[in-house]
Formats: sequence, structure tokens, C-alpha cells
Amino acid sequence: MPERITPRTLKGFRDYPPEVMIPRERLMETARRVYRSYGYAPIDTPALEYLEVLTGKGSDETDKQLYRFQDHGGRDVGLRFDLTVPLARFAAQHAQQLGLPFKRYHIGPVWRGENTQKGRYREFVQCDFDTVGVTGVASDVEVVLVVHDLMLALGVGRFTIRINHRGVLNGLLETLGLADRSVEVLRALDKLTKAGPDKVRAELAETAGATDQQADALFRFAETGGDAQTVLDSLRPLVGGNALGAASLDRLAEVLAGVAAGGVASGRVQIDPSIARGLDYYTGLVLETTLDDLPGIGSVASGGRYDDLAGVYTNQALPGIGASLGVDRLLAAMEELGLVDEVRTPADALVVFFDGDRLADYVALAARLRAAGVATEVYPEPKKLGKQLQYADKKGFRLAVIAGPDELAAGECQLKDLATGESKTVRLDAAAEAALAALGRA
Amino acid sequence: MPERITPRTLKGFRDYPPEVMIPRERLMETARRVYRSYGYAPIDTPALEYLEVLTGKGSDETDKQLYRFQDHGGRDVGLRFDLTVPLARFAAQHAQQLGLPFKRYHIGPVWRGENTQKGRYREFVQCDFDTVGVTGVASDVEVVLVVHDLMLALGVGRFTIRINHRGVLNGLLETLGLADRSVEVLRALDKLTKAGPDKVRAELAETAGATDQQADALFRFAETGGDAQTVLDSLRPLVGGNALGAASLDRLAEVLAGVAAGGVASGRVQIDPSIARGLDYYTGLVLETTLDDLPGIGSVASGGRYDDLAGVYTNQALPGIGASLGVDRLLAAMEELGLVDEVRTPADALVVFFDGDRLADYVALAARLRAAGVATEVYPEPKKLGKQLQYADKKGFRLAVIAGPDELAAGECQLKDLATGESKTVRLDAAAEAALAALGRA
Repeated sequence: MPERITPRTLKGFRDYPPEVMIPRERLMETARRVYRSYGYAPIDTPALEYLEVLTGKGSDETDKQLYRFQDHGGRDVGLRFDLTVPLARFAAQHAQQLGLPFKRYHIGPVWRGENTQKGRYREFVQCDFDTVGVTGVASDVEVVLVVHDLMLALGVGRFTIRINHRGVLNGLLETLGLADRSVEVLRALDKLTKAGPDKVRAELAETAGATDQQADALFRFAETGGDAQTVLDSLRPLVGGNALGAASLDRLAEVLAGVAAGGVASGRVQIDPSIARGLDYYTGLVLETTLDDLPGIGSVASGGRYDDLAGVYTNQALPGIGASLGVDRLLAAMEELGLVDEVRTPADALVVFFDGDRLADYVALAARLRAAGVATEVYPEPKKLGKQLQYADKKGFRLAVIAGPDELAAGECQLKDLATGESKTVRLDAAAEAALAALGRA
Repeated sequence: MPERITPRTLKGFRDYPPEVMIPRERLMETARRVYRSYGYAPIDTPALEYLEVLTGKGSDETDKQLYRFQDHGGRDVGLRFDLTVPLARFAAQHAQQLGLPFKRYHIGPVWRGENTQKGRYREFVQCDFDTVGVTGVASDVEVVLVVHDLMLALGVGRFTIRINHRGVLNGLLETLGLADRSVEVLRALDKLTKAGPDKVRAELAETAGATDQQADALFRFAETGGDAQTVLDSLRPLVGGNALGAASLDRLAEVLAGVAAGGVASGRVQIDPSIARGLDYYTGLVLETTLDDLPGIGSVASGGRYDDLAGVYTNQALPGIGASLGVDRLLAAMEELGLVDEVRTPADALVVFFDGDRLADYVALAARLRAAGVATEVYPEPKKLGKQLQYADKKGFRLAVIAGPDELAAGECQLKDLATGESKTVRLDAAAEAALAALGRA
């Protein structure tokens, strides 16, 4: 006998058993449905790319985390670490055939050999949508609407979409004479909540050369709060004197009007001047989404507008806008909020294999249930009833359908509600209807 | 400016643009729906596995094709080359928590560094379902029913599921005294259609030591045809004297009775003694599925029963049965049969951005259409009508919704059927209903 090999997964990787995969698939299907409802079309790209394609655009950090090797033909290749670089490569390569605007969604795994920590894996799914080739406000409005519809469709509970425009802060920095210090200023402001104004003031002085007066203006800016209109009104005197700042505030006002027209309830979208995101990438609207009942987990859907998607690969200007759903974070949050049912089967009903001689009857009954839309499994072996019901319970079936020889002879079966334990006898030709009623789908 | 990097994919890999990905997603969603309707639950496993896990079970050929490398921690790892090895590893690793029977489906990419040829890629999707931990005939019946329902749900046109039982041929070989030559016999018989009886007779003599009489018996066996019952009746005298052969024929008869009870039309399932499949793996029922209008492309859904899924990883007996949908082959066939519409958008309607000042009206109209179930895109920029209709045409939208200032003032819009070119004017609050009617979904 050959030596046994220990069955195990690599560190930082994980299996998705049914109870984890069922809600994941549901989430991804909801995302697809919402993306499609706005005209985003699916694409897919290879997991493996030429190494130079991947390192051309990434940061030093992603370069270090790349899974890279030589393939059978001696080519330097790597596993994609996000879906944005493949989109850029794809858009540049197929620009002619695709035409612009080009709207795509892409859901797929990516790989990063980063140090593992709680809740972080070396393989994870990204779930992106983008519109490439557009600069108008309509696509700013749309990205917010898509995230909004997605949150509603997923049933995540109360949520807030926070938007900002990179030009607002840049306008303020121009006004303050700190335009060339945006990176340092943002890095310092980012610590305001945690470290407090004194420490941030010191950092601003040290790294950005900011005076106390400049720091005060920045604090007023970053701490501007209230409903969206109030924030707009408060920001206008701070940055409105600057052309970029004024235009950016006008743009945010247009976005607010557009999303209201699209049916977003007042208060669900707020303007948060502290949101910056991907400093070297986003250039216009930026957005984050937080769950009101779990704000601490951070943003579950984020994105923004960029000027130049694929400058590494093409001289064609490819501006665009998009966002990404944080699949793992959102699922963890929904679990914590008790919004995920734990089931191990996607089926509704288990037909008990009671009498070993009556397989044909059970198969026919299951086919009848399935035809009515009741997902139905037939237990694969004639075992004791108790054992089969135990299986049904463990898997999370909602109904068991039980028929012994006497019931079959009478043209009947028992429908057992596994949550309440109640049984009732129904005619075989009415079983599907009764099952739908028991499932609340009649 | 940094040097530009050529945007390209690796040899043997491909991008899936929307017109390819839309039917692929539809196919995979249909597969999920059918698998779930029988109680198969989704799982996923990592793309990367320990190299020893992958090479433990594979053949020399798959070993050679493995994408393998050392990860950042110096571990020998590889990309999975199928979904069966991961299932075996998964089932062995989690046997305790999962319990038996365990029914799972798994749809995901696999990688093989094989020589590229027409229609073969180094990355492709597999789409498997299996029941682990069962030996009874109910699961034989089920695997045929799942494939049957899947073919119907996919709308592939006329199809035939061919089944066989490995014990039938083995019984005949025992009868003929050739039991230890099954590999050689099957290899020779496999060439019967192409090479003809004379050449196969010579090969049988040379590799299996078969006499003319033995070869004649094998030919009669392999060429047995007709409807399922006729084949069973013809095979019985050939192999029925042997206990294994007789039991296997009985089992096939039970499978036929079960699938008939499950609603499979007579003639859709045939017994084909020439089907062997995976000699060193399958041990009971085997099946293949061919499209009646394109038999030459081979099987589009295949599988069978196995005694020992995971002997490499565990001493627990894990018998099972399953099958796999050939995603690429089936999509190519459906395209050849004209069963795939070429569209580049998943949306139904394009709202033309006609008047640059009326974005809010277009957004509101689109939201109304979406709420009624009409997937609707708003063109992202106010451009000439002709240009927007050209875009709608290229993408494959079925409807365009057009409203200028006058129409909006009158509370109306035009609904244009892009296939017929016909337009009609409808009230804005009746636009969704009219769109559904135009799409044939009212």
C-alpha cells in the first residue's frame, strides 16, 4: 500500500464548505443581478498573466506579494493580485473591439502572498464593476446607485454611503498653499480620530510644514458633519474660493440630486470630506459604504473615479469609475448581525427512502416536487427513518416527505415541517402544492 | 514617461469578453440551479495546493502538466488540474464534520500546462457534481436524472445519455478468460469504429492474446445496439452466465426503471456497451451524453461510479458517483447549433441621454424600469441620438427609451424596438409595463 498523504490546505488558504459557500454564492448572485440591471456585462481574464503585465502597474507592496514563477515555456508569470490590473490590460488590448463606454463586472479570485492575519487570506474573491471611457456626472451618480441597490438587495440592514470628491481637499490645499503636500496632509488627517488634534497638529507641522492656522482650517474641513446639504454649505466658504474646490462641490451637489432622482432615501448618502482612498489612483468622486450597526468593520463597498486606467499599456486615454464589493468583510458582518442562515443544503425537501422496494415512487414524487420549484433530494439509501431525519436536520432541510408502503398504496405521503416538527398527510398529487405552502411560497 | 508594456495574454490562456461570458454565466447558473434542485451543495477549494496533494493521485500525464513552483515560504505548491483531487482531499480532511452521504457541486477553473491545440486551453472551467459515501442504485438513477434535467434546462436540443456498467464487460471478460487483459481489450475495442474489425482483431491477438472466437464475442458485445431493453436482452446471453455480468445487467435494468419513474422520455437513455471511461477509476455505472445533432463532438456530460475516492489521503472508504459538464465543449456546440444569442450587454433597455439638463429624469425613468424587472442602462453622456442608438445596436440592447424636453414636458417617452425599428409613444408611468410587453414578459 502506498504511503498516505496528509490531506491539508496551504497556510493562508481555506476550503469553503457548503454552510460557508451557500451564502457566498447567494451574495455573488445578487451582485451579478444588480450589476446586470445597470448594464454591466461580465468578463473574465486568466488567473495567470505575464509577470511584466502585473508588475507594470502595481505598487512595491503588491509586487512583493506576487505569486510568481516560470511556466513550462520558461516565461515569467504571476497570479493576478487584483482585478483592476487585468481590466486595464484587457481594456488596452481589446479597445478597438470593445468600443467606449465599456461597462463590465468581474467576480473572481485573486492571490497575494501576504502575511496571514485574522480574516485575511492569500486567496480571496474580488467583486468589481467599472465604467471605462466616461467622465460625466451620470456615471458618478450611477456608481452610487449601484452600491445602494446592491446593499438593499443583499439585505444588509441600515447602511450609509459616504461620498467625497478629491478636488474638494485639493482645492482647500491650493487655497492654503499646501497643494504639493497632499500626501503628507492626508496621512496626518487620517489619524485625527484616533490620535487627536494635538498629535496631528504636530505631524502636520513636521511633515507638511503647516502653520497652526493652516492646521485649524484642515481640522474644520475634516470634521465638517451633518446632512449632505449642510456639509456642502459648510465646505463652500472653506474651499469655494478656489476654482477646483468650487467645481468639485458643484459636482457633489449634482451627484446628490441624481441619486435622489434614482430613488435613494434622504440621509443614506452623506458627504464625508475625510474620505480620500487610493491617493495615487482616484482623481474625482470617491465613496465608501458602512453598515450603521457595525461601523467598526470599515467600508464594505468602495470605489471612485480615475483619470487614467491603463497608461502603462496604451496611450489611449481611459478614464473611468467603479467600485468593489468587499465580499469577505460583508459576509463576516452579515454573519455577526445574524443575517445569514446556516444551512448545509440548497434543497428545501428531503424525500425519505423508507421502503427499499419503492425507489421509483420516491423518484417520481421528487420529480413532481422539483417540477413545482421545490428543490428536493431523495435520500440515497433505504435506512432507518430516524437516521434519515437526523441527516435532514443536520443539513438544514425544511421539509421531510415520508411515505411507507401503506401511504403509497393510499396515494398519500406525510409532509413533516422540520422546524416545528408538525406532520400532515397529503395526497401525492397535492404534495408539491402543500410543500410550497409550507415553505411560504404558495 | 515609463516604457509601455504590451498588453497580451499568455499562450494557451484567453480573455472572456462579454459576448462570450454572458452565455457562459448563463450556462453555469443553469448548472447550479439544477444541481441545487437535487440537493447538491456548493463548495470551493483553493486554486493552490501542496504539490504532494496534487501528485498523490494524478497520472504521470497530469503530473507533467502541473503548474508548480515554490511559494514565499519555500513550500512546493501547484495549481489544481481538476476538481476531483481537491474533492478527495476535502472529503478526507473534513470527513468528520461533513458526514455521509455528502453531495457537492463545484464549478471553478483548473490549470494544465499541456500543449495547446484548437479548442484546448491551459486554463478551463470544470463543472462537477458528486455524491460521496453511497453505493446504492438510487444515486445511479440520480446522476442520470441530473444530467437529463441539465440538458433540458440548457436547451441543447436533442440529446442521448448513454450508460453502461463496468461489470458488464468485466463479466464478459471473466467468461472469456480475459479478465486480466481488460486494459488491452478496451484499448483495442475503442478503435473499432475508426480502424475496423480486421485491425482490431490483430491488435486483440497481439496485446491481449485473444483468439478469433474471443474477438468475435467481443465484437458482438461492443456492437450491440437498439433500444435499452433490446440491448439488455442481447447482452444477457453473452455475459449473463457470469455472476458479475448478471448483477451488472440487473443494475442497469434498475437504473432504467428509476430514470423512467423520474420522467425521462423513452429513448433518451440508451445502453452502450462500448462506453468504458477512466479505466483505473470508474467501477460501476458510467455515462456519456451526446447531442443528436452534433454527435461528432463527443460527450458533453460524463461521469460514473467509483469505489475509492480518497484512498491516497485516508483509510476511510469513500465510494461515490458523479459527473461533469463539459462547459467549453457544450458552449462551442450550442454556438454551432445556433442556440446562443450574441449579445454584449445583459441589459434589456438603453435610456438615451438626450437632453444634457435632464439627467434626473433619465435616472428616475431607468429606476422605474429596473424596479419592474427591466434591466436598464442610462447612456452615460449626452451625445447625438444616432451615436447612442449605434451603441445600443452594437451591444445588443432590445429596447431604446428616448425622451427629449418636449416628451418629458408631456410626461411621455418613446419606446423603440431595436429589432423591428418600430417606435411608440407611451406615458412615463406606463413605460415599464410597455417595456415588459415589448420584451414578451408582460
